[in-house]
Amino acid sequence: MVNETQQSCSASSSSRSDGGSSSGSESSKDNSRCSTPVLDADRHERLREKMRRRQEAGDKWFSLEFFPPRTANAAVNLISRFDRMGAGGPLFIDVTWHPAGDPGSDKETSSMIIANTAVNYCGLETILHMTCCNQTKDDITGHLQKAKRLGLKNIMALRGDPAGEEWEEEVDGFNHAADLVKHIRSEFDDYFDICVAGYPKGHPEAESYETDLRHLKEKVFAGADFIITQLFFRPETFLKFMKDCQAIGITCPIIPGIFPIQGYHSLRQLVKLSKLEVPQEIKDVIEPIKDNDAAIRNYGVELAVSMCRELLDSGMVHGLHFYTLNREVATTEVLKRLGLWKEDPRRPLPWAVSAHPKRRVEDVRPIFWASRPKSYIYRTQEWDDFPNGRWGNSSSPAFGELKDYYLFYLKSKSPREELLKMWGEELTGEESVFEVFTCYITGEPNRNGHRVTCMPWNDDPLATETNLLKDQLEKVNRRGILTINSQPNINGKPSTDPIVGWGPSGGYVFQKAYLEFFASSEIVTALLKVLKKYELRVNYHIVNVKGQNITNAPDLQPNAVTWGIFPGREIIQPTVVDPVSFLYWKDEAFALWIEQWAKLYEEESPSRMIIQYIHDNYYLVNLVDNDFPLENCLWQVVDDTFELLNSPTQQ
Amino acid sequence: MVNETQQSCSASSSSRSDGGSSSGSESSKDNSRCSTPVLDADRHERLREKMRRRQEAGDKWFSLEFFPPRTANAAVNLISRFDRMGAGGPLFIDVTWHPAGDPGSDKETSSMIIANTAVNYCGLETILHMTCCNQTKDDITGHLQKAKRLGLKNIMALRGDPAGEEWEEEVDGFNHAADLVKHIRSEFDDYFDICVAGYPKGHPEAESYETDLRHLKEKVFAGADFIITQLFFRPETFLKFMKDCQAIGITCPIIPGIFPIQGYHSLRQLVKLSKLEVPQEIKDVIEPIKDNDAAIRNYGVELAVSMCRELLDSGMVHGLHFYTLNREVATTEVLKRLGLWKEDPRRPLPWAVSAHPKRRVEDVRPIFWASRPKSYIYRTQEWDDFPNGRWGNSSSPAFGELKDYYLFYLKSKSPREELLKMWGEELTGEESVFEVFTCYITGEPNRNGHRVTCMPWNDDPLATETNLLKDQLEKVNRRGILTINSQPNINGKPSTDPIVGWGPSGGYVFQKAYLEFFASSEIVTALLKVLKKYELRVNYHIVNVKGQNITNAPDLQPNAVTWGIFPGREIIQPTVVDPVSFLYWKDEAFALWIEQWAKLYEEESPSRMIIQYIHDNYYLVNLVDNDFPLENCLWQVVDDTFELLNSPTQQ
Repeated sequence: MVNETQQSCSASSSSRSDGGSSSGSESSKDNSRCSTPVLDADRHERLREKMRRRQEAGDKWFSLEFFPPRTANAAVNLISRFDRMGAGGPLFIDVTWHPAGDPGSDKETSSMIIANTAVNYCGLETILHMTCCNQTKDDITGHLQKAKRLGLKNIMALRGDPAGEEWEEEVDGFNHAADLVKHIRSEFDDYFDICVAGYPKGHPEAESYETDLRHLKEKVFAGADFIITQLFFRPETFLKFMKDCQAIGITCPIIPGIFPIQGYHSLRQLVKLSKLEVPQEIKDVIEPIKDNDAAIRNYGVELAVSMCRELLDSGMVHGLHFYTLNREVATTEVLKRLGLWKEDPRRPLPWAVSAHPKRRVEDVRPIFWASRPKSYIYRTQEWDDFPNGRWGNSSSPAFGELKDYYLFYLKSKSPREELLKMWGEELTGEESVFEVFTCYITGEPNRNGHRVTCMPWNDDPLATETNLLKDQLEKVNRRGILTINSQPNINGKPSTDPIVGWGPSGGYVFQKAYLEFFASSEIVTALLKVLKKYELRVNYHIVNVKGQNITNAPDLQPNAVTWGIFPGREIIQPTVVDPVSFLYWKDEAFALWIEQWAKLYEEESPSRMIIQYIHDNYYLVNLVDNDFPLENCLWQVVDDTFELLNSPTQQ
Repeated sequence: MVNETQQSCSASSSSRSDGGSSSGSESSKDNSRCSTPVLDADRHERLREKMRRRQEAGDKWFSLEFFPPRTANAAVNLISRFDRMGAGGPLFIDVTWHPAGDPGSDKETSSMIIANTAVNYCGLETILHMTCCNQTKDDITGHLQKAKRLGLKNIMALRGDPAGEEWEEEVDGFNHAADLVKHIRSEFDDYFDICVAGYPKGHPEAESYETDLRHLKEKVFAGADFIITQLFFRPETFLKFMKDCQAIGITCPIIPGIFPIQGYHSLRQLVKLSKLEVPQEIKDVIEPIKDNDAAIRNYGVELAVSMCRELLDSGMVHGLHFYTLNREVATTEVLKRLGLWKEDPRRPLPWAVSAHPKRRVEDVRPIFWASRPKSYIYRTQEWDDFPNGRWGNSSSPAFGELKDYYLFYLKSKSPREELLKMWGEELTGEESVFEVFTCYITGEPNRNGHRVTCMPWNDDPLATETNLLKDQLEKVNRRGILTINSQPNINGKPSTDPIVGWGPSGGYVFQKAYLEFFASSEIVTALLKVLKKYELRVNYHIVNVKGQNITNAPDLQPNAVTWGIFPGREIIQPTVVDPVSFLYWKDEAFALWIEQWAKLYEEESPSRMIIQYIHDNYYLVNLVDNDFPLENCLWQVVDDTFELLNSPTQQ
C-alpha cells in the first residue's frame, strides 16, 4: 500500500520523495535553502540552467544582439531601447566587443559599460563578447575580473580579427577562441557561462567545413556551454549544420543567429564583413527594390518569420538569436508575428529587478525611488547586503552620494530646449509651476501647446496605475499640492491583474494608498491640523530641504505599502515607506528642483528664483492610508486641507 | 511660518522633530532600529521601563507573588495557574526564595526553576527573589549567573532570615540587602532590574521606623529600581510610609503589597511570620466567623477592594502587588472588582510569546506546535537566533531532542486512570480510536460517559477558533481523518476580533485554511488522487513514521498561513507551514501515540497493538488552501476523498 502510494506520487514532477529513516537524520532535514522567498527562479539560475529549463518545459525563447554605440547620446538611446525591448522578454541580450572602441574601459560607450548597464540597470541577463587575439593574458584576465566585479556572468569567447592581413599564430598568445575558453575556465573555474560562435557554412578562414566543425568541437570541449551561430539565409543551412555538429559529438545547445534584412546597405556591409554569400533567390527580390527601404524591410521580416517558423517547427530549435543592428522595428515585428514577444511579461516584483548576482536576494525597496529605479540602483550599488524580506533586518546602509544626475544614462533624455518648452521658457510665479505639474498629469498641452511628457522626478509619462488616480491628481496639483509619486489602495487583486499584478499566478496583491508631494508651508500647516483627525489611520512624513522632519510614524519602523500573498510562499512585501531612507530621498528630490529645473534658466533670472524659492521653502510630504480595505481617505485629507485654507475663520 | 509649523507639531507626543542640516549628516539618518517590527513594546522593554510607561500613560497595573511548591505535582498545577492568572494581564509575577528548598537548584520545585518556567514557558515578566545572609559571595554570584542564563532579568534583593536566634554580622559577608544590591550592580552592572522590600510599619528588627527608612534609602541608593512593601492592613499606613520615603529623598516607585485575607489560619500564620499586628477592627470581624472560610474570604475580598480603591484614588499608587499565597480565587475576584483584570488582553501575536530576552525577536513559528507551545519553546531553547520575519532567513537550526514529555511540566496533566477513562480502557479496533477523536471534537461523553478534554497532541479542550470548524471536524474524524490541528481561512478581519484577532488595533489579520490529521494509507492513496485536481490551490505534506515524504510544495520554502497588516508597520507573518520543521514535528507527533497513549496499556495487549499499528502505518498529513479569499476547499477535498473511497469502480 505504502509502495503504491509512493509510486503514484514520485511520478509527478512536483512531488518530492524524501525517504529518511524514522530517527530522522540531520542530513535529511537540514537541507539548505535560499534566504529569501523564491518568487522568480530566473533570478537564481545561471543562463545555461534557464536555457535547459525552458527547453524542458517546451518554452521557446529569443535573445537580442547589440553593439556598443559611438556617442554618449546614442548610448542613452540604446539603453532606452534595452528597456523597451527588454519588456518583450528576451532570455538574454549580448553586447559585442569593439576592439577599436576601448571595449574594457570605463567610457560610457565601451562594451563593458554598456553590458554593465544592461545587467545592473535594465535587469537583463547579458552576455559580454570578448575577443582574444592581439591581447596579453593579463589584459584578458583584467577584463574578465572587471566583468565579474560588475556582475556580468556570461562571456561570448571569440578569437577576433587579427590586426594584420596575414594571420600568424603567436607563441604563448591566444590564437583561437578555444584558448580563451580554456583560460576563462582555468582562471575563473565555473563562474562564467561561456558561449562560442558556430559557422553554419564554416568559418571563412577555415580550410574546410569539416575542419571548422572540429574547431567548434574543440571550443566546446574546452569548456563552452552553448553555441550561437553566425547568420545564415536558409533554414536548411542551420539544420544540416546542427546535425553535423551532433554527429561529431557536440551536444550543447546550438542557437541559430537570425538576421532580419533591414535595408540594402546594411545587408551589403554585413555580407562583406562576414564573407557570406547572399543566395540568388534573395538577391533577385532585393535588387529591384533596393531604394525602397520599407519594401526591403517588409521582405526581410517575411523572410525571417518564415525561416524562424521552419526552424522552430523542426523541433531541433528552442531559442532564436537576433542580430538587431541596434534597431527595434524589424526584430520586434518578427518576434510579434512568431508569438515570442510577450506583450505582458509577468513582473516578478512591482519594480524592475537588477540582474547583478548580489542583488538577486533584493526583494524590498523604498517606494520613493519608484519612478527613478536606476538612481536607486546606482545609489545602492556599493551595498554588500540588501534588506531581504524586511527592510528593518538590515542596519540602514549609507546611500551613495547624490551625484547620480551626472551619470550619463540618468541624465534627462530630453535636451534643454525640449525641457524649456515643456516646463516653461519663463515662469511668472509658483502658479506657473503648478500648471506644469497639472499638464504632466492630464496629458493636455501647456499654454504654449507642448505636452509635458516628463518631470525632474519622473523620466517617463504617467504610469498606467497612476492613471487610475488622474482626476484627483489633476485637482490637487492645480492648487499647489505638487504630486511626484502615488499609488491607489488595492485590497487583494489577483496577482495576474494586468495593471497592479506581479509575482507568480494564483496569488493576491495588496497596496496601501500612498501620496507624495511638495507643498508650501501654508498648506503643510493646514494639513497638519487636518491630519490630527486621521491620527490613527494616516501615517505621514513631512520634511523640508533643511531636514526639519515631522512625522507620526512609530519609532523608525518601515511601513509596508505593497505586499503579495502567494501559494506555498511566505509573504512578500516589496515596497515600504522607510523613514530612514526617506531622508536620503529628500536630498535627491529637493536637488532635482535645482539640477534639472532651475539650472535651465539664467542665474538671477526670475524663473530660476521661483524654482529656488520652492526648493528653499516647500515641504516634501508623504502620506499612507493604512486602512487599505476601505476607500482611500487621502483625497479627503487633501480636500479637508483646502477647505481649512479657504475658511477665513480657521486661518 | 516654518517655526509655527514646527511648534504646532513638537507639542504632539507622537511627532518627532529631527532638525538635521541640509547636507543630512550620517548620524541623523543612520539611527539604529530594532531588527524586527515592534508589535509589542513590552517585549523590548525592561520592567522598570514598563512601569514608567504605564505610569506616564495613567494605566494602573497589578502584579502577583507566588512561592515555590513542595511537590512536582503541585508545580504542574502552579504552572497551570500561571497560565490562567497570566491571562489577566499582570505586569509581572514574582517567585519567593526558599532557602530550605534548595532554591537555586535544578529541582522542578526550586525557586529558580519555577521562575524559569514562568519566564520561558508562560511568557511572564518575572522577578526572582534572592536572599543573601548565610551565603558566600560565590554562591550568590553563581545563582545570579544561572538566573541570567535562564533569561531572568529581575531580582528582589532580600537579606533573609538569619540562621540562629541572635543576629551577628559576618565580616566580608552579606549582612544587609543593600550589600546584595551593591554586589549585583558591581558584578552584573545594569543587567538586572532590582527590587527591594519596604516595611510600612518599619522592619520588625529595626531600632525604629526612622532607622528602617534610612536602611531603605541605603538599599535604593545602592542601586535598587523600585520597592515592594510588606503587607499592611490600613491604606493610611502605606500612604504615610510613602510620604515619609519621599521626604527623605526616595523617588523610585513604591508598590504596595496587598494581602487579601483568605482564611483564619493563613492570616494567623502570616502575622506570626511577619511580626505584624492585626488591627482590632479586623480581629473583631474575623474572630466570630473564624470557622466559616467563605465568610472570611468574602470579608477579605471586601477589605482588599476597599483598601485598593483608596490607594488608587490617592493618586500616589500606580500598581498593586498581590500576595496570592498561590491561590487564585480571592486575588482574581479583587482584581475583577477593581477593573484591573483584563478579560481579553490583546494578544501581541497569535501564539503566546516567551519572555526570555533572546526570544524577544521571535515572531514566526511553525503552525505544527500550535497546541504544544511549551514543547516548541523547550525544543528550541538552545537556539541562539530565531527566524525573524521570515523563517527562511535562518538556516534551519536543529530542534532539541525528543524528550520533552519527560519534562515535568510537559507531562500530561491528567493521571493515567483519568486518561484511560477518556481514551478507552480497552480499544477494539481503529474505530475505537476514531471515536475518541470525535468525542474530543464534539465535547460529547464517550460510550462510558466520560468527556474527552485532552488528547496527546492537545493539552487543552478545543480552541474557540477551532470551534468554528466543529461540525466539519466531527464528520471527518468519525471516518478516520484524525485531526490534530486546524484553522479556518480569514480574509482581513480587524485585529481586534475577539476570536481570531491579534496585534495592535487598527490592523487586519488573515489566515489560510489549514488542516492536519493522521490517516490510513488507504485514505492517503485516495486523497492523493483527489489532490491532483487541486494541484495549484492546495499545498500538502504527507509523511509516515519512517519519514517517507510526499509533497507538492516548491523547494523547501515555508508557506505563510497567518499574517497581519498593521498601521505604520511591516507585514507580520507569525505562523508558517515549514517543510523542514515538519519533519521534526512528525517525530514528535508520531511519538505521542506511543508515549502518551499506547503506554497506558499493558505490553502486547490488543489495545496497545492497535495504537502501535496506527503509529506504524498511518500518515501524518497537512493541507493548506492557498486561496484564502474564497471558501475553504479543504472540506471538499476530504469529501471527494471519501466519495472516491466509496466508489467501487474507482478503487
